[in-house]
Amino acid sequence: MATLGDIGVAAAINITSAFVFLVAFAILRLQPFNDRVYFPKWYLKGLRSSPSSSGAFVGKFVNLDFKSYLRFLNWMPEALKMPELELIDHAGLDSAVYLRIYLLGLKIFVPMTLLAWAVLVPVNWTNKSADLGKFTHSDIDKLSISNISLGSHRFWAHIMMAYVFTFWTCYVLRKEYETVASMRLHFLASERRRPDQFTVLLRNVPPDPDESVSELVEHFFLVNHPDNYLTHQVVYNANTLAKLVKEKKSKQNWLDYYQLKYSRNQLKRPLMKMGFLGLCGDQVDAIDFQTSEIERLTKEIAVERERVINDPDSIMPAAFVSFKTRWGAAVCAQTQQCRDPTTWLTEWAPEPRDIYWKNLAIPYVQLTIKRLIIAVVFFFLTFFFMIPIAFVQSLANIESIRKKVPFLKVIIDVSFIKAFIQGFLPGIALKLFLIFLPTILMIMSKFEGFISISFLERRSASRYYIFNFVNVFLGSIIAGSAFQQLNKFSKLSANEIPKTIGVAIPMKATFFITYIMVDGWAGTAGEILRLKPLIIYHLKNFFLVKTEKDREEAMDPGSLGFNTGEPQIQLYFLLGLVYAVVTPLLLPFILVFFALAYVVFRHQIINVYNQEYESGAAFWPDVHGRVITALIIAQLLLIGLLSSLGLPQSTPVLIALPVLTISFHLFCKGRYEPAFVRYPLQEAMMKDTLERAREPNLNLKGYLQNAFIHPVFKSCDDDDGDEEFNEKWEKESVLVPTKRQSRRNTPLPSKISSNSSPSLPEVVQEDP
Amino acid sequence: MATLGDIGVAAAINITSAFVFLVAFAILRLQPFNDRVYFPKWYLKGLRSSPSSSGAFVGKFVNLDFKSYLRFLNWMPEALKMPELELIDHAGLDSAVYLRIYLLGLKIFVPMTLLAWAVLVPVNWTNKSADLGKFTHSDIDKLSISNISLGSHRFWAHIMMAYVFTFWTCYVLRKEYETVASMRLHFLASERRRPDQFTVLLRNVPPDPDESVSELVEHFFLVNHPDNYLTHQVVYNANTLAKLVKEKKSKQNWLDYYQLKYSRNQLKRPLMKMGFLGLCGDQVDAIDFQTSEIERLTKEIAVERERVINDPDSIMPAAFVSFKTRWGAAVCAQTQQCRDPTTWLTEWAPEPRDIYWKNLAIPYVQLTIKRLIIAVVFFFLTFFFMIPIAFVQSLANIESIRKKVPFLKVIIDVSFIKAFIQGFLPGIALKLFLIFLPTILMIMSKFEGFISISFLERRSASRYYIFNFVNVFLGSIIAGSAFQQLNKFSKLSANEIPKTIGVAIPMKATFFITYIMVDGWAGTAGEILRLKPLIIYHLKNFFLVKTEKDREEAMDPGSLGFNTGEPQIQLYFLLGLVYAVVTPLLLPFILVFFALAYVVFRHQIINVYNQEYESGAAFWPDVHGRVITALIIAQLLLIGLLSSLGLPQSTPVLIALPVLTISFHLFCKGRYEPAFVRYPLQEAMMKDTLERAREPNLNLKGYLQNAFIHPVFKSCDDDDGDEEFNEKWEKESVLVPTKRQSRRNTPLPSKISSNSSPSLPEVVQEDP
Repeated sequence: MATLGDIGVAAAINITSAFVFLVAFAILRLQPFNDRVYFPKWYLKGLRSSPSSSGAFVGKFVNLDFKSYLRFLNWMPEALKMPELELIDHAGLDSAVYLRIYLLGLKIFVPMTLLAWAVLVPVNWTNKSADLGKFTHSDIDKLSISNISLGSHRFWAHIMMAYVFTFWTCYVLRKEYETVASMRLHFLASERRRPDQFTVLLRNVPPDPDESVSELVEHFFLVNHPDNYLTHQVVYNANTLAKLVKEKKSKQNWLDYYQLKYSRNQLKRPLMKMGFLGLCGDQVDAIDFQTSEIERLTKEIAVERERVINDPDSIMPAAFVSFKTRWGAAVCAQTQQCRDPTTWLTEWAPEPRDIYWKNLAIPYVQLTIKRLIIAVVFFFLTFFFMIPIAFVQSLANIESIRKKVPFLKVIIDVSFIKAFIQGFLPGIALKLFLIFLPTILMIMSKFEGFISISFLERRSASRYYIFNFVNVFLGSIIAGSAFQQLNKFSKLSANEIPKTIGVAIPMKATFFITYIMVDGWAGTAGEILRLKPLIIYHLKNFFLVKTEKDREEAMDPGSLGFNTGEPQIQLYFLLGLVYAVVTPLLLPFILVFFALAYVVFRHQIINVYNQEYESGAAFWPDVHGRVITALIIAQLLLIGLLSSLGLPQSTPVLIALPVLTISFHLFCKGRYEPAFVRYPLQEAMMKDTLERAREPNLNLKGYLQNAFIHPVFKSCDDDDGDEEFNEKWEKESVLVPTKRQSRRNTPLPSKISSNSSPSLPEVVQEDP
Repeated sequence: MATLGDIGVAAAINITSAFVFLVAFAILRLQPFNDRVYFPKWYLKGLRSSPSSSGAFVGKFVNLDFKSYLRFLNWMPEALKMPELELIDHAGLDSAVYLRIYLLGLKIFVPMTLLAWAVLVPVNWTNKSADLGKFTHSDIDKLSISNISLGSHRFWAHIMMAYVFTFWTCYVLRKEYETVASMRLHFLASERRRPDQFTVLLRNVPPDPDESVSELVEHFFLVNHPDNYLTHQVVYNANTLAKLVKEKKSKQNWLDYYQLKYSRNQLKRPLMKMGFLGLCGDQVDAIDFQTSEIERLTKEIAVERERVINDPDSIMPAAFVSFKTRWGAAVCAQTQQCRDPTTWLTEWAPEPRDIYWKNLAIPYVQLTIKRLIIAVVFFFLTFFFMIPIAFVQSLANIESIRKKVPFLKVIIDVSFIKAFIQGFLPGIALKLFLIFLPTILMIMSKFEGFISISFLERRSASRYYIFNFVNVFLGSIIAGSAFQQLNKFSKLSANEIPKTIGVAIPMKATFFITYIMVDGWAGTAGEILRLKPLIIYHLKNFFLVKTEKDREEAMDPGSLGFNTGEPQIQLYFLLGLVYAVVTPLLLPFILVFFALAYVVFRHQIINVYNQEYESGAAFWPDVHGRVITALIIAQLLLIGLLSSLGLPQSTPVLIALPVLTISFHLFCKGRYEPAFVRYPLQEAMMKDTLERAREPNLNLKGYLQNAFIHPVFKSCDDDDGDEEFNEKWEKESVLVPTKRQSRRNTPLPSKISSNSSPSLPEVVQEDP
């Protein structure tokens, strides 16, 4: 495998590219015309405005204060300055806790690195290896467990360290879980009033021939939660409407573009082609065409909006049910309502901006089938994606290329190219593969029908983690080695898997070190440069922006992206825990990643990202669980490695480790997880009592009235429709409960009448 | 292995013994002096009285009506006559649903047997086996899958049948789950008012320096469930008291015995020895000694009772909290109360007679440690119990005995002895081993600290099932074969386990057939004879019984014993599902078991057993889950078997089966399990409303007052103490909530006062 020199070259390349990114960022961020790209959060908060007010014309675009370029790294201490409480206030708990994942990495791995270098590296280094022939050795192996002779008693040092590392990791994890749980509880307790605190999402309302969904919900809750029920909002299937609105917005953008083009060049009216992607077909006047299209869509939107509001079929069997108190909502969200456990399902309503509206319209029956389909699809995606990866990995093994394709020998033997191929290519190819993956996974999660964006992201994240584990981690180890040890590995029995992987692990250390450098160092440094948003912003700024509001919209602050970021961090946890005992050389590389990423993302969170929702760190149990998984994997692989290194008697000693780790996990689950899943009644009661004392005359019903309306109804460009909608809403909420018995006697006419109008204010008249 | 002839001999032996048991039962049950042994349930229900009233003296003891002996099997149709609804009314839902497990067996296996004999037996039989040498063949193998040549296409018939059997089993399981769930819901809905419907069990009340447990509970629920909270009862640690009462009762029994002895032989006062077990030491007058002992214990009991009631340390941090409505209780039982998920834990209160009082006194902290200990102990019990079983199994393999111990050859070669050893001994030895196991498992569950007897039994049952699976099923297959194929099996890798077991399965069919006959046929027939209760009743009747009440107590109706019975039935499900495809010959034996056991246990439930508690068929999810487990095991073993029979291409076809089965299980879990775990608010509200309409003036507080008092306080032989206790209780329940703030300012004095009296009626005076 690669030598220390190869790693040196790779490190030089990656450090250079990281450095280039950082310098480019330092220069670009100081230019006023990039201000909205690198500090959008402050603009969104209204704390910063366009720098156009001061200085000369050139000064608007280019920073001429050359002194400021000298302090090009001073964003780092700035990023670290803001205290955590202020950060929570500034960016929300989700972001603050997300940063703690990096801190967790540092807390786990800093003492681990020191210990491993103090104990294991000397133990490995000083051994006079007698059986060098067994594995392909290089300088790195001198520092790793491979340098120790088969069956040597030196392995007991490694076993001891495995215990120490496990206990340390568990200790840090428990501390961190405790802190995050109390942060979450404190955050929830100190939150101001929010509609979702009073509201549960009700799904799967059973169909009823006599009553509309709205009536049915009202009657059910008036009967079963008589003291607590306040009001409810039905869910409209506004997916078509949302699609039309989106289309209209896109046409509007094109119209703006053409108008700007025309205003710059008054001589020639812009033309466009009607065919596929504007590349073929008849030419028409672009401004006229887009204007007519927008007119058509505006009409269609009005019709569709009318239809959605008045057609009972567009009301989904779901509703947001609000209660008079948080206590009532907490009770309803945690209990089963009906004897049939598949109907009248209640759960906490997500924050309004966290709701993924499209999926509220999916009938519950489909969900089970969809989940099965996605499970199968994910299985195939995970296991058949391995083929290209295996091909790329084979590049890393330059020796086998040389043997198989001898005419490339001349090129490969140039030492720089060799180092480049070995150090850079496998990492970047893998990275490219993985760029498109999160989108696919997110689409899969959406298809599955989960109803909050935060949950969608968490689901995608755990899939991404599994994918990473199978393909990046296992795939790199087994496929890469498969070229060398094909005969050995051809038939894997379940029992030998930890052994087989365990044996391959020390050999793949070099690959993972380069991977960490490419993905962890250069990638993180690239993140701060924000190349894609930078380019898009300037394109938009040039072609579309006319007003200050347009410029606001052209900014793309982005957000943390839990579904992509977290599983990648988890890969570092996995690598660190697996290699801590085996190849301690890898640990410093991971430390650098965690430190760099912590600073970079802290900067981004403070200055750039704009979180779309706030889940109150609901993702922490996932983070915790995945670190535990990584720990158990590391332990199993160590068992496999040691038993194949001539120390099978180590297995009973080490088998206690996963058992202890699992019971630790169960302990944490019982002790801390409820804080992330349930909502204690005591807390709810406390907040209710406080609020009643402070605001005895609060009009809660008015406050909750329109909290959970599909955003498409709220979009302010159609004010008239909106008012009409609100009016309709108010009519609906004064609905008087009917005597259902009387309706049941005359089912047919009332069914027709309920079809003609879902809000049914006339049912009042049916009361004798 | 054994031939068809051997099985015939074994069958003859077992059928004979079953027949002997049945005849003995038929004769014994007709004797009037056995009436209380065979019809205790009717006595307990007050529907039958001692037959002493009618006929001559001899007629009291012996049935002289010889015609009745001719109809010795007529209990069978009688047992089947009672309709299910009447059975539920007569014996409770638990018993009625328990019988449905046998019915489930018949429903699954009758069509399966027909189909297997119609399709698989011809397919197996007609194959001209070319490679007879591979496995040791016997006549039975002609009917089994072993008769088919390696890699033959006939195996596709087996694969097809595996699919058919899986779908049929799942279909029946789903139907049955649905029926049982609706039976349970109907049963719960039609139940009369019971204290546990209004009550939750609260555990882990955090310690408070200012207030006693009782005050703390009252304040907490007055604050957090203001509209629903009604009253509560604290839990006293009465374990010492219960022990004393038990001791007194035992001494009383001895006193009765000696007095009876003396009354029969007035010349000699009975003597007893003081030493170990009455075998050594000084002789004393037995009646005097026991009388003085009873006096001493009576005093001690009075003192202890006083101490328990007045000492605040004997109040556990647990309480039964009752609510005004079932709705309130349902809400409290299903929600989290406090932000710390390890305190203020609420769950449904078990039925008062279902509570295992001893464990209420265990502080919560110990529970986690106890569970870990038991898990480790159970692991060792399961895996080290195998050694003796393996030894017994080796007997079954008569060929290897003959080879190893040649001097026994002469005896073994007597064909009857050979058949006896092969057919009878392994089964009965195994059975003897297993008799003592449930008691051990039950003690383990009790140690773990679960608080209801029904849960203890369910826990023991699942442990027993695991034990049965590992030791009876796997142990018989692997250990028994280990003597033949030691070289092959010496090293088992995880992947090869299904293969190894799969290969051994057809060979062990004979063993399991004899096991079914011994355990299932003769054992079930033996159950109806009730030999142990018969002997004990007559001993007691002779030595102790003086009054009618004594005779009542001497009856030991017993109960179903879910913890021992159910896992054994599950073993038959496992055997049936595993062998359905492999050796269809085994299926009729299982059918006979299910049919016989159904009739026998129906008879016992109607006439004998007296259920100690009623859990409303809460055990069904366990039953369902274990049948599913058996199904998956059968599928995996079939995959192993077929891949070793030269048809590895069957694996991808068959792998879909366990996947489908698991997803079916998940479906059932979501659809039906909530009916067994949670209590829907709608139901609660309905019952509340009905009750309010029917009995508007119900004094619920009075009704619930003493519902959850440790039975030792209720025992009527100490009426004076009981009254005092009730009085105290009433005092406690008029407690007025204190203003805690004022108490907090003076913690020390109030701590002393709360120590001196737990009920603290004087705190009322502290109100300014």
